[in-house]
Amino acid sequence: MEEPMSAPQAIDIAAKFAAFDDHWRPRIAAQANGQDIRLVKTKGVFPWHSHPDAEEVFLVFKGRFRVEYRDRAVELGPGQMTVVPRGVEHRTASDEEAEVMIFEPSEVVNTGDAEASAFTAPAGVRV
Amino acid sequence: MEEPMSAPQAIDIAAKFAAFDDHWRPRIAAQANGQDIRLVKTKGVFPWHSHPDAEEVFLVFKGRFRVEYRDRAVELGPGQMTVVPRGVEHRTASDEEAEVMIFEPSEVVNTGDAEASAFTAPAGVRV
Repeated sequence: MEEPMSAPQAIDIAAKFAAFDDHWRPRIAAQANGQDIRLVKTKGVFPWHSHPDAEEVFLVFKGRFRVEYRDRAVELGPGQMTVVPRGVEHRTASDEEAEVMIFEPSEVVNTGDAEASAFTAPAGVRV
Repeated sequence: MEEPMSAPQAIDIAAKFAAFDDHWRPRIAAQANGQDIRLVKTKGVFPWHSHPDAEEVFLVFKGRFRVEYRDRAVELGPGQMTVVPRGVEHRTASDEEAEVMIFEPSEVVNTGDAEASAFTAPAGVRV
């Protein structure tokens, strides 16, 4: 029987990324203190949106990933991280596929305050 | 003037680790949703303790890092992560120096419920 997610175990990030292929569909790799640690593969451009009640932290594992704001962009490569302030409109993008870890409250929907679309990921999916 | 920590910027993890040398002194690299993202260099064995009110997430960037429980140990290398359940006694260890990212609520003291000691890190130190 699978151990509950909270049991002490090693979680291998590369193995988790290898377990799925689709883009813009974050998976929960771990949970702690009401937050999710999610893994997502990104490619292309995500819709503009904001999260009125949460910061989002992005940490890049592979490839290049960009957070675009209306007045600037933050470019990230492997081993680089950024925090998206709450309530600030942004969109994310990767010209080629990237692998990105996200830290955010478990209730956060990936498309935030934008209208639900094909980009709106199902909640609670684990990897 | 330095930008506030919440302003959108790229945070380079390797550069942050290069900015300090001491062991068992976590630095805050970013904050989000009441949580700290801390960086720590580890070497040797940390005292037994628990955190009654918080999970702790450890993600290894360099070297090898071990979370010991009374009945098992979780061994981690680069790109591996583990969650320490709240209230469960544990200690951490690295035979050689390791670089580790920690996610936990901002109010968490590194030595938890153990008596304050030389291992108790000052709160709120940033890198």
